[in-house]
Amino acid sequence: MIRTHDAGTLRASDAGTTVTLAGWVARRRDHGGVIFVDLRDASGVVQVVFREEDAHALRNEFCVKVVGEVSARPSGNENPDLATGAIEVVASELTVLSEAAPLPLPVDDTVTASDDLRLKYRYLDLRRSGPAKALRLRSRANQIAREVLHARDFNEIETPTLTRSTPEGARDFLVPVRLQPGTWYALPQSPQLFKQLLMVAGMERYYQIARCYRDEDFRADRQPEFTQLDIEMSFVTQDDVIALGEEIVSRLWSELADYQVQLPIPRITWTDAMNRYGSDKPDLRYGVELVELTDYLRGTAFRVFAGAIDAGGYVGAVVMPGGASQTRKELDGWQDWAKARGARGLAYVVLDSETGEPKGPVAKNLSPEHLAGLADQVGAKPGDAVFFAAAAERREAQELLGAARIEIAKRANLIDESTWAFCWVVDAPMFEKTDDGGWTAVHHPFTSPNEEWEARFEEAPDQALAYAYDIVVNGNEIGGGSVRIHRADVQSRVFDLLGITPEEAADKFGFLLEAFKYGPPPHAGIALGWDRTCMLLSGNDSIREVIAFPKTRGGFDPLTTAPTPITAQQRLEAGIDAKPKATAGTPGTDGQAVPVLHSN
Amino acid sequence: MIRTHDAGTLRASDAGTTVTLAGWVARRRDHGGVIFVDLRDASGVVQVVFREEDAHALRNEFCVKVVGEVSARPSGNENPDLATGAIEVVASELTVLSEAAPLPLPVDDTVTASDDLRLKYRYLDLRRSGPAKALRLRSRANQIAREVLHARDFNEIETPTLTRSTPEGARDFLVPVRLQPGTWYALPQSPQLFKQLLMVAGMERYYQIARCYRDEDFRADRQPEFTQLDIEMSFVTQDDVIALGEEIVSRLWSELADYQVQLPIPRITWTDAMNRYGSDKPDLRYGVELVELTDYLRGTAFRVFAGAIDAGGYVGAVVMPGGASQTRKELDGWQDWAKARGARGLAYVVLDSETGEPKGPVAKNLSPEHLAGLADQVGAKPGDAVFFAAAAERREAQELLGAARIEIAKRANLIDESTWAFCWVVDAPMFEKTDDGGWTAVHHPFTSPNEEWEARFEEAPDQALAYAYDIVVNGNEIGGGSVRIHRADVQSRVFDLLGITPEEAADKFGFLLEAFKYGPPPHAGIALGWDRTCMLLSGNDSIREVIAFPKTRGGFDPLTTAPTPITAQQRLEAGIDAKPKATAGTPGTDGQAVPVLHSN
Repeated sequence: MIRTHDAGTLRASDAGTTVTLAGWVARRRDHGGVIFVDLRDASGVVQVVFREEDAHALRNEFCVKVVGEVSARPSGNENPDLATGAIEVVASELTVLSEAAPLPLPVDDTVTASDDLRLKYRYLDLRRSGPAKALRLRSRANQIAREVLHARDFNEIETPTLTRSTPEGARDFLVPVRLQPGTWYALPQSPQLFKQLLMVAGMERYYQIARCYRDEDFRADRQPEFTQLDIEMSFVTQDDVIALGEEIVSRLWSELADYQVQLPIPRITWTDAMNRYGSDKPDLRYGVELVELTDYLRGTAFRVFAGAIDAGGYVGAVVMPGGASQTRKELDGWQDWAKARGARGLAYVVLDSETGEPKGPVAKNLSPEHLAGLADQVGAKPGDAVFFAAAAERREAQELLGAARIEIAKRANLIDESTWAFCWVVDAPMFEKTDDGGWTAVHHPFTSPNEEWEARFEEAPDQALAYAYDIVVNGNEIGGGSVRIHRADVQSRVFDLLGITPEEAADKFGFLLEAFKYGPPPHAGIALGWDRTCMLLSGNDSIREVIAFPKTRGGFDPLTTAPTPITAQQRLEAGIDAKPKATAGTPGTDGQAVPVLHSN
Repeated sequence: MIRTHDAGTLRASDAGTTVTLAGWVARRRDHGGVIFVDLRDASGVVQVVFREEDAHALRNEFCVKVVGEVSARPSGNENPDLATGAIEVVASELTVLSEAAPLPLPVDDTVTASDDLRLKYRYLDLRRSGPAKALRLRSRANQIAREVLHARDFNEIETPTLTRSTPEGARDFLVPVRLQPGTWYALPQSPQLFKQLLMVAGMERYYQIARCYRDEDFRADRQPEFTQLDIEMSFVTQDDVIALGEEIVSRLWSELADYQVQLPIPRITWTDAMNRYGSDKPDLRYGVELVELTDYLRGTAFRVFAGAIDAGGYVGAVVMPGGASQTRKELDGWQDWAKARGARGLAYVVLDSETGEPKGPVAKNLSPEHLAGLADQVGAKPGDAVFFAAAAERREAQELLGAARIEIAKRANLIDESTWAFCWVVDAPMFEKTDDGGWTAVHHPFTSPNEEWEARFEEAPDQALAYAYDIVVNGNEIGGGSVRIHRADVQSRVFDLLGITPEEAADKFGFLLEAFKYGPPPHAGIALGWDRTCMLLSGNDSIREVIAFPKTRGGFDPLTTAPTPITAQQRLEAGIDAKPKATAGTPGTDGQAVPVLHSN
């Protein structure tokens, strides 16, 4: 090692020790004959005092080696904000290891810079304490998860990333195969198929911090490559996977966010989550629950509500505490908010803060009886506002109210930012109707019905529930998984319901179904979205902060300027324009697609 | 958990316990009223005794749940070869979890099957104890390496795999970018560039078990995707990286191969390795060293030798102990062996086992004086054979002798298969001559000259040495790395020597050189070929054995049948045939290539 000590570790007890340090000039202050330099390395910062001329040449971010003696700072000059603030290093020798040109991005935690500039000079950005800390936290998060998993006899197994194209659903990234011109690999959207094969293989406990790829249109905070902590277990039930998930999460939050997760984490059914919070990933840091009013308002003359009720739909409300004090402009703002979400508007009444009398546009349309009982029915007090939603599709109205609930919590300042509210959302529906009146799988067609529905999911497919579970914290889904079907008879009935013939199934799911012929064990799994989990743990609000070299929108990397055009020779050699031989790999062509299995 | 106990953990002390087991039928023996089943799970095998009819239906590889009581085996029926051999489980309840069709690949350690069959049914192959053990070993190897690295404050950091094309050198796998039609990502040949950027970023200690991609022609035992344990450190010297490598290797071999590596691992210079073993990855399990005879044979009339000597080349020999007893056919076989390697043949003499008299084709061509002193000169005894190589290019002749040395060790049975002979090959040359009389970098142009040569490598580029090191065990290179150049003046002189103008350098190495303007620290790294390391640790002779789902030659996966053709719609959507916009990314086009940095 070029250094003898890490700068950030020096303490008063080191006074008198001669040390060799190496790091970067974080700050330089020239006080006439004496120059003070904050020397930064990975461990922290220490003040170095130079009385020699040569330190005049130092500039910010020069990389230097310093020999000096640790010395207690003169009384009154201690810096209690700095771990090394009791001492300084009096330099006797300085070596400039490398110089730094003027900085395009100041290495300074207080400076804000554009994302593009930060990413172009990511190597300078990462010298700042916040970004550096986020990457270190992520490394530690990996280690904690692995400790839990290895203690439980999991095997870390790498699955292929040059694999088979799955043309349905989300798009695959494709890779031309020079040695078999005209054929292509696909980058995997998840290791789902391979981890299930590993269960058939008897590996029993698998995990991988797996790189996954999804060629989606870039929405905010998506990356073309992302990472999941991917887990699969054999001979387990849903409860076993949930218990494992809880152990991982509680270890992570305890150590990295200094928060003790209360175990067991509460479970809420998917239906309850929708009914109470209008979301399948409810933020439980605050109440503001939805109230269904379909029965209460039955018979109303107000067309908006009556139409929904008559169509067998849903009317509901959510209360904004103190919302009656909003200005007319603020209340109008809610209409804009709703329209931005694609709704026609957001009906509301405000309850007079003195009398409790309901006022506002909807109040005029409701009968005196409905108005009189409304506050009790929705649990509102004088001074509150009540927002309504109504739709023929229950879910549509609930999701609008769910979004309003989140917005209410923000505007009414109801969110305790210091807490973490975890829940499991369980009992998710198995099927949903397709436009043509058939059924499609909500997760993937290998998701197991729960015990209650296993024998009779055909009787009411819209009500049938799966052993599928998501873990949610503060309204963020950080992971999810399911028990998989391992019984041929159940699988075959699911295919029947989905309208998939045995021939189609063989075409579509070929190699996995083939594997399932040979004694597949009961198995279940989960995947945690690792970028998002680390983002939350590090207190950031973008996954880019926990990715060493993230891409901007459109998948562009400002640092390397990838992607780039390729040369004609590369194109030729890679076989990009070759026609596949008749004998090339079988499926992957039209009608022989393998389904997307990126759900967990 | 569906089971209460792991089958392989049951012992005599468990007798009387009622257990629920779950696993696979490994073997079934029907003894009239009693059926014995070897039940296998991830922990091992236990014998289960069924007295009920229902067990008749069991077939190999059915997945079952069994409730029963652990019972000591009747005296005399114990199986000392089985960890659970003292007991059996008397079944009271049987549930077939899933059935198995007749097996295309018997799950039996004694059956050999073709590679294609094994890979097509890899999920059955992995139920065999050998293949399963190899994957478990690899998981543990990951864990051990991580323990060492985390204890030393390394950060595990993921680097991008959708990155920038580097058209020189080995071919990249390419990925079309739908959102920027006409541009492509490349899959990285190693994280080399990114790990150096992380050092500039002040991360100081980085590691990653990294997936890498190289689109090479398939030679034996190559995979298009492979894994390396990738490490980079700042403020260190070559000795620090070597010490870290030794700690990792000694921990791995101690725990996984039950072998204590003697530390420090011996170091041999690249030049010594070539001179003594004719290889830059010498197998030190045996001697059989090369002997140079250039001076000894100077003046010989034998044209083959004289030609090499006159051309300033090399003549050398290697001794095969007892080689004189080879039959004429065996000696002729050596000629075929040499020709298969591209040599014209392999000159030899045999020393009469009684008299020591040199005989054979070469003997006729050498002078009596040369013959008389030969045995002493090469260290041969009566009964030995001496093989010669001569060439104008020293390295060419040495490599032939080096290959002969390995073959001698095999044929003369000189290899102690129970031992592990490690060495570091250090002081590798920096440059080699190009055909046009210029110089090219042996590693990559960022490899640092060693201290001795740093100030003067221009004086004798062919002799200049780098801080570059490979770790070798039993003739296998399992890793390598180098100290990188961090000083702008040294880098600029290296570019000068390589004939790279500053403009070209900016074109070719743009973003890395830009980063190096901002106080890059001294840094060095290493990468261990993880597939090969795990292969050796697991006692296998193919890296496929330590890869969950490997590909065959040509990059084909018999299980999923990847790669496959893609649909016209996929092709259209992926923008494969789109022309890049004028504004798309910058370089990557002709003449603006970034160099290959996959060496370590």
